[in-house]
Amino acid sequence: MKIGLIGLGKMGYNLALNMMEHKHQIVAYDLDKNAVARLQNEGAEAAGSISEMVQKLDTPRIVWLMVPHGKPVENLIDQLMPMLSKGDIIIEAGNSHYKESIAHAERLESQGIHFFDVGTSGGMEGARHGACYMIGGDPEVFKTIEPVFRDTAVNKGYVYTGRAGSGHFAKMVHNGVEYGMMASIGEGFDILERSPFDFDFAEIARCWSNGSVIRGWLMELTESAFRADPRLKQIKGVMHSSGEGKWTVDEALDLGVPAPVIALSLMMRYRSEEDDTFNGKVVAALRNQFGGHAVDKA
Amino acid sequence: MKIGLIGLGKMGYNLALNMMEHKHQIVAYDLDKNAVARLQNEGAEAAGSISEMVQKLDTPRIVWLMVPHGKPVENLIDQLMPMLSKGDIIIEAGNSHYKESIAHAERLESQGIHFFDVGTSGGMEGARHGACYMIGGDPEVFKTIEPVFRDTAVNKGYVYTGRAGSGHFAKMVHNGVEYGMMASIGEGFDILERSPFDFDFAEIARCWSNGSVIRGWLMELTESAFRADPRLKQIKGVMHSSGEGKWTVDEALDLGVPAPVIALSLMMRYRSEEDDTFNGKVVAALRNQFGGHAVDKA
Repeated sequence: MKIGLIGLGKMGYNLALNMMEHKHQIVAYDLDKNAVARLQNEGAEAAGSISEMVQKLDTPRIVWLMVPHGKPVENLIDQLMPMLSKGDIIIEAGNSHYKESIAHAERLESQGIHFFDVGTSGGMEGARHGACYMIGGDPEVFKTIEPVFRDTAVNKGYVYTGRAGSGHFAKMVHNGVEYGMMASIGEGFDILERSPFDFDFAEIARCWSNGSVIRGWLMELTESAFRADPRLKQIKGVMHSSGEGKWTVDEALDLGVPAPVIALSLMMRYRSEEDDTFNGKVVAALRNQFGGHAVDKA
Repeated sequence: MKIGLIGLGKMGYNLALNMMEHKHQIVAYDLDKNAVARLQNEGAEAAGSISEMVQKLDTPRIVWLMVPHGKPVENLIDQLMPMLSKGDIIIEAGNSHYKESIAHAERLESQGIHFFDVGTSGGMEGARHGACYMIGGDPEVFKTIEPVFRDTAVNKGYVYTGRAGSGHFAKMVHNGVEYGMMASIGEGFDILERSPFDFDFAEIARCWSNGSVIRGWLMELTESAFRADPRLKQIKGVMHSSGEGKWTVDEALDLGVPAPVIALSLMMRYRSEEDDTFNGKVVAALRNQFGGHAVDKA
């Protein structure tokens, strides 16, 4: 298939290589001209503008967006809408909020343009050699674009999730689950670290990656992190987050679903971003007030 | 190697078949004579009593315990101590608390009997076709028994963790991590279930098992559970626990390690065992007291 790809960041660039390896043709556009030139060297057709990219596509045109969610996606859809025709397809494979994707789908479908919201997992390595996709949108039109997902996903690694919005919803929940799983792994190694034993963490993670109940990719990555730095001395224990964990918790709150473990794993990320806490000052002050307990001076 | 195996339950029986498949000889004992006879049909040597089993072993004798933790392990060690000699080896591959294992090791080592505490993961399937072991005990003596672990573990699936107690400590933490991971998976599917979309959970879990960040055995088991019962209508959402999650939390408290996600996943298991809660009655009563908010009548 011939695909117009906008966004050649870490994910988009690797995905483009993956697509081309599977005989798909890429017309590439990015604000970064160097990235476009680099991909052109790998066999992609370069586009100097979005309209040039659109002109180079066959109808029905397929445009794949791989850019940050929010304004960047919205702006691109605004620009693309007047250039596209009935029957054309936009695939939004970034990390948009599912409600934004539903809005994009409604706006585009009103002009007969099909919209697919695609949650993409598996990191850069997955983008390059086999991604994992959760895909929402029109079920009939999906069949026409399914080959590119089948080709670039790992075996069995894509799922059609239902109407527009469901792909990003599933991806959002995937990331929420990831928060809880990672929090649990982190806490487990913290207990090992402060135990009376002298564990080799890379060896423990290697063992847990093979045959244990908790084996999986996150444990393999844990092994690899400990191999590179046995006590993680090079890293500060600050856990940033990029939004999807919070969206999962927001959604749990809106739906009235108790999801305390995922919520707490998010809160513990926030906590890790603070060196000291106002919370702690308040509790220390109260202990001092009622019981005369000593406080640590700032 | 020739091994005296005590305990032919789900784990012990499958492990025995696994050992024999790898040319180890088993002298089997269990209170359940039928289990012994069944394993005898598979090629094991049967023992009608513990002393008969001990007599049938070569020195240094290797006795493998695969029985419930606590009293059963303690009683067996009491019985075995006078029958064994300096240099003999007891492998305790059940789920004992690591502090009990340290105590067993000290008692046995004082008589020159070596003790290994082995955490075994991977379930029945693992016991039969490739287990995962975390092994604590004397590092030199370990080398003499390493072949049976290498043979019956999945590739790369065993680790020598350090002095006695460390094997069961590592297994305890493994189970704690498992609690948090499972809680997170459960919450994620709960959000999917109450979402505005109509997800096919088996298909979602299948996709997440292939190429996603959260892929792993637990996700594969999730797929398999949803294949058998797409909405899990046959199962009540009661999450029992068998002790190791609590031990992990106990240990985190003793060590002063914050492990809130694992702790909360344990608390949510307890919550799931209650149909109604006294906690809820108290809060409902308070809302009624101060705000006149309606209560649900018992």
